[in-house]
Amino acid sequence: MADIDDDLDAEAFGITDRIVAEVLNAVMQGDALAIDALLDPLHPADIAHLIEQIDSRERRDLLTLWQGGIDGDILSELDENLREEIIQQLAPAELATALRDLDSDDVVDLVEYLGEDQQEAVLDALDASDRVVVEQALSYPEESAGRHMQSELVRAPDHWTVGEAIDYLRSDVVLPDQFYHIILVDPRLKATGYVTLGRILSHPRSTPLRDLTEETFRTFHVAQGVEEVAQAINHYHLITAPVVDDDGRVVGVITIDDAMAFLEEEAEEDILRLAGVGEGSLSDNVYETTKQRFPWLAVNLLTAILASLVISVFEETIAGLVALAVLMPIVASMGGNAGTQSLTVAVRALATRDLTPSNIWRVIRREALVGLLNGLAFAAVMGVVGTIWFGAPMLGVVIAVAMVVNLLVAGLAGIGVPVVMERFGIDPALASGTFVTTVTDVVGFFAFLGLASVMLL
Amino acid sequence: MADIDDDLDAEAFGITDRIVAEVLNAVMQGDALAIDALLDPLHPADIAHLIEQIDSRERRDLLTLWQGGIDGDILSELDENLREEIIQQLAPAELATALRDLDSDDVVDLVEYLGEDQQEAVLDALDASDRVVVEQALSYPEESAGRHMQSELVRAPDHWTVGEAIDYLRSDVVLPDQFYHIILVDPRLKATGYVTLGRILSHPRSTPLRDLTEETFRTFHVAQGVEEVAQAINHYHLITAPVVDDDGRVVGVITIDDAMAFLEEEAEEDILRLAGVGEGSLSDNVYETTKQRFPWLAVNLLTAILASLVISVFEETIAGLVALAVLMPIVASMGGNAGTQSLTVAVRALATRDLTPSNIWRVIRREALVGLLNGLAFAAVMGVVGTIWFGAPMLGVVIAVAMVVNLLVAGLAGIGVPVVMERFGIDPALASGTFVTTVTDVVGFFAFLGLASVMLL
Repeated sequence: MADIDDDLDAEAFGITDRIVAEVLNAVMQGDALAIDALLDPLHPADIAHLIEQIDSRERRDLLTLWQGGIDGDILSELDENLREEIIQQLAPAELATALRDLDSDDVVDLVEYLGEDQQEAVLDALDASDRVVVEQALSYPEESAGRHMQSELVRAPDHWTVGEAIDYLRSDVVLPDQFYHIILVDPRLKATGYVTLGRILSHPRSTPLRDLTEETFRTFHVAQGVEEVAQAINHYHLITAPVVDDDGRVVGVITIDDAMAFLEEEAEEDILRLAGVGEGSLSDNVYETTKQRFPWLAVNLLTAILASLVISVFEETIAGLVALAVLMPIVASMGGNAGTQSLTVAVRALATRDLTPSNIWRVIRREALVGLLNGLAFAAVMGVVGTIWFGAPMLGVVIAVAMVVNLLVAGLAGIGVPVVMERFGIDPALASGTFVTTVTDVVGFFAFLGLASVMLL
Repeated sequence: MADIDDDLDAEAFGITDRIVAEVLNAVMQGDALAIDALLDPLHPADIAHLIEQIDSRERRDLLTLWQGGIDGDILSELDENLREEIIQQLAPAELATALRDLDSDDVVDLVEYLGEDQQEAVLDALDASDRVVVEQALSYPEESAGRHMQSELVRAPDHWTVGEAIDYLRSDVVLPDQFYHIILVDPRLKATGYVTLGRILSHPRSTPLRDLTEETFRTFHVAQGVEEVAQAINHYHLITAPVVDDDGRVVGVITIDDAMAFLEEEAEEDILRLAGVGEGSLSDNVYETTKQRFPWLAVNLLTAILASLVISVFEETIAGLVALAVLMPIVASMGGNAGTQSLTVAVRALATRDLTPSNIWRVIRREALVGLLNGLAFAAVMGVVGTIWFGAPMLGVVIAVAMVVNLLVAGLAGIGVPVVMERFGIDPALASGTFVTTVTDVVGFFAFLGLASVMLL
């Protein structure tokens, strides 16, 4: 079974290492025909993935040789930092061709982080009407629904019937590439509901569209955060989220496939932030990566020095009983781990809105009790280990008590720190980790060495 | 702006704390009418969310009082561990009603982890034909596409025209609640392509469906892992992923909304695993939570003791210079952090298929160099700090060298450990963290204390 699974895993999506190797081989031999033959059948997402996996010299050679050339879909799929590099290499005419078939949200996504010159070049390459739409979107705040919606959508007056809708769709109107709902609007263009295409197709021509609207219909304001909209799409299983302006007029939609990609990126960011890695990607070079990781390590150094200061208070105690130096990292490490556990649960629960004022006190109580219980369990273990290892029962008692204290504090800090961060508008994923481990280090060393200095010397 | 954003954040989705408070108030007063009035307008996902947020006593009272009662949609939205508790409280007839309108994948999802008795009760509550479909799905491996697909879909012979498709859909055939494609099949029921409903609606009745098929069409095998299929849906922006059996016959579909929910859960799991928290949820009680977190802390205790053993080798060195005990946690802590950074990047890159044999050596080289560069930077800082703090230049040199060594090792272990885990078929998110910090603790203490014993005493 394992073998079959592996085989199936390999072919669900993406490109095989063999194809990458073949493309690189063709690039090395300067064989443009072979490159075309290899890349043409691939999905744009796969070509983008291939371009991300090869190194920058190979990338330049490939793009020079490849006749087909980068199109808008491939650009959209590329990692942001690579995108900029590649757009710079394209002639304005090539860029214009590449962008022609993209939905407005994809164009906005491409241009929003470009330098002003490049942005101007891209906007110039667009048709006048497309340009207006893109500029309008760029006028909304970053990370807002208005910035990320696509303007391509299908509206219909809410007094139409199924037959009128079908006739309209069959006329020479320009339709979006993909659409799953018709949005009903009143005479003032205010959205009043939507109908799935499946319902339209399965009802007689005479049925009023109004009778077929979905209960789940809800609209989102242009200024609403796009992450919120994406979460709402997931929460309510929406396929299309209509975006409205201040007057309730539909000006765009956010579709589920974009919401899905967005939430995946957000989850990715949360994971990387929790680990103190910034916005990095695998195609960043050594210098960029070093720079991204440095600040977090610097913060950690400060907190580590803080913990060392606590230890230095007890230098004499340690000089009197070196076993303390041997055992003290255990208390700190257990506290750090327990704190990280509580912290991670809290950060995720805040992100998914599971942690709210309704249950916060129950959760805090739970984390404290869990810390206490695990503290007691490991206190018993370490009490015995400490006693046997160093033959000093009181040393066992000291480490046991310090363990209980530190794990209780870890539970409280793990939940308290992110909640306070969130209250102050700071992303808890970004900053909580350092605070929590600082607390557990300081408390761990202080409790252990402090108790030891009182009880043992 | 912050205020407006907060307001908008609050209303994008979910329930307000006010509603939770009102419901709890109604429960306390035993006011069944008020409960009905409050819950009836809510989306099933919101009701499920509310049920998860209140404590178990309130939950029991609410369910007893609420006339509307739990339906299948709410059950589907509930956390798995709560679901079981609530299914146990339902009478078989209630359960049957609740399940009637669910898609087959939701029923499977509900029953797959139930005890045998409960599962039997649910299956008995289904219509004979639904039961066959659910039992068939349960016969596929856990986490396979076959287990998670919905059998409700729309097929059409691939020689049909738009007109024939519309007539078929308007006939009294039972259609899925939501569908976005018609899947074309040949006379042997083999899937040959699919057509979006938008294309059908926008073409004349005489157009052959075959002329309207999507280029992106691809099928997935029943035994394929469902996570792979969900990733493919995201990667290729699919809305419907047709699932085929060994003979290539379409037996179900996985829809993008299910794939989205699935990937969100997987990302959540990865985050929690990286932090050493199992499958826990916020509604677990103290005992369950303590039990989930214990094993990871136990593993951490073992590795912490291992690190302590390294320290104990150098007891005499520390006795000779207590400053070493003060400084040694700094080296270990910096290594642990740097290792976690590399590790997290590697674990995510493996999960998203960005780390492959094509680029693995380049990434390993990068992580080593990043570790080295940051090691040199912090070595310089700590060299100075160590010298000033303790007035011993050689101590500064020792901590500097140990820092370089440990950050280099951290970079290598951070990438190497998860890659090796993956090679052996172990989830790198689950187990890598402990290994990496063990390596950095042991190397950190050993390098620092070892160098000190050679150079300082």
